Amino acid sequence: MVFNKIAIIGVGLLGASFALAAKRHGISKAVYGYGRSEANLKKAKERGIIDEYSTTLEDLCRGADLIVLASPVGTFLKLAESFSGLLNKGAIVTDVGSVKGSLVYKLEAIMPEDIYFVGGHPIKGDDRSGNDASSETFFENADFILTPTEKTNKSALNTVTKIWQIFGTRIKILTPELHDRVFSSVSHLPHIVAYALVNTVNEIDDSFLSYSGAGFMDTTRIAMSSPEIWRDICILNRENILDNIDALKEKLDVLAKYMRSKNEPPLYEEFDKAKVLRKALVNNKKDAC
Amino acid sequence: MVFNKIAIIGVGLLGASFALAAKRHGISKAVYGYGRSEANLKKAKERGIIDEYSTTLEDLCRGADLIVLASPVGTFLKLAESFSGLLNKGAIVTDVGSVKGSLVYKLEAIMPEDIYFVGGHPIKGDDRSGNDASSETFFENADFILTPTEKTNKSALNTVTKIWQIFGTRIKILTPELHDRVFSSVSHLPHIVAYALVNTVNEIDDSFLSYSGAGFMDTTRIAMSSPEIWRDICILNRENILDNIDALKEKLDVLAKYMRSKNEPPLYEEFDKAKVLRKALVNNKKDAC
Repeated sequence: MVFNKIAIIGVGLLGASFALAAKRHGISKAVYGYGRSEANLKKAKERGIIDEYSTTLEDLCRGADLIVLASPVGTFLKLAESFSGLLNKGAIVTDVGSVKGSLVYKLEAIMPEDIYFVGGHPIKGDDRSGNDASSETFFENADFILTPTEKTNKSALNTVTKIWQIFGTRIKILTPELHDRVFSSVSHLPHIVAYALVNTVNEIDDSFLSYSGAGFMDTTRIAMSSPEIWRDICILNRENILDNIDALKEKLDVLAKYMRSKNEPPLYEEFDKAKVLRKALVNNKKDAC
Repeated sequence: MVFNKIAIIGVGLLGASFALAAKRHGISKAVYGYGRSEANLKKAKERGIIDEYSTTLEDLCRGADLIVLASPVGTFLKLAESFSGLLNKGAIVTDVGSVKGSLVYKLEAIMPEDIYFVGGHPIKGDDRSGNDASSETFFENADFILTPTEKTNKSALNTVTKIWQIFGTRIKILTPELHDRVFSSVSHLPHIVAYALVNTVNEIDDSFLSYSGAGFMDTTRIAMSSPEIWRDICILNRENILDNIDALKEKLDVLAKYMRSKNEPPLYEEFDKAKVLRKALVNNKKDAC
């Protein structure tokens, strides 16, 4: 499997790591980048992350047989509307976005009959954004979620699966809807909580953060993640996220009730249950994100 | 400064690390341990963490000139009532508990006139508990909070300060009340949130935790902390913690409102503000906890 030209839209952490992995494994004759900032694209070319860059979608799509959407997920629809008519027959469009759900069906609907969309999501992130932190082994040992629909072209699905197997990920398949429920819980909710914790403590008293220790630092590490990426995720997956925020608030209410009534045994049980569940994840999950 | 006998009550992670640091720096002729489990005390002696152990408070207090409370903070009052009459004149009692506030005044009030209580709290923890994870350098570079009151004996305060300076901590002074407000925010609230997050996700769907990645793992690392220790902290510092839970719920409500109304700019601003605040902590805080 060798592409003629892979076109990466958004050469940030994920897009740049995709480009580097594609080069490392020799899966394309050329890797092109496209993005909002020409300075960023130039830097990516100088660093050898991409072979060339395009500043227009026309340029980018000329001869491309694989397009990877790696910009903030809120930009996907508009971009796809702009480039879908520019692609050669048989081209595959895929993505690395953190939201699937209805977005997958909308992207599918935008594509002409002979252009194939396959939705995907590498479970690998970093609080650093931008291509400075990218690497050719970034995705190794991560889970990769494929979210095919009934309409997904089998051959294109097979090709995208192979790419991510070559990149060293563990492939898992979920429906777009289940994907969004799962990751609204294990990823989106914790990000919102981390952002909320930092601002809450700062608003309680702006001198208190200076006393924070390793516990606070770990719990809020992901509050250093890109506000742009997370704004988009929160808007697009808001229905699931809002349900989860309600569930978390209910749990906090239960714990608060036990504290208020000095009811020690159920407080202990809640903490012990969480400890057992969290410990069980340690050995399984060391490499993923 | 060399003590004749340091008596450690509770030879878990903090108590054992205190004992090891005391030996490393030669600040006592002998270090004794006391606790609920004789098996644990035996193990600590075999490992050279303590020189000897006592199974009664009478034994432990005989000849001790420094007593360190390092058991779960909910046990302090009962223990202090039991041992305060057994100590030699001039003995110093200190602690490593995560709650100060009214507890400090109660402990002071229990002590006979010629026994001196000095409250302290090393800002250093670990999700591991028990003395397996203890080390002689455990406290190095951590902050140490002293919480003297108007009644605190100056000479005893000076002695406790010196111990923690020798152990390599950075000494900070707070009132017992302010200590509890600060750490209810930067430590107690994040612990409760971590426990709550794990249980909430598990209750949404018990298959979802298996999809968790590095973000979830870091955010919930401290949910592996001792349920016994955290139950006690939550009961003793409940007034501050309950206020903080309310503040966090209000912040989550604000973020939810922005999501529900697809109001992107203020959502971005909240995330960006948290990111800036959190990044500012990175360089200052690498060693503390």
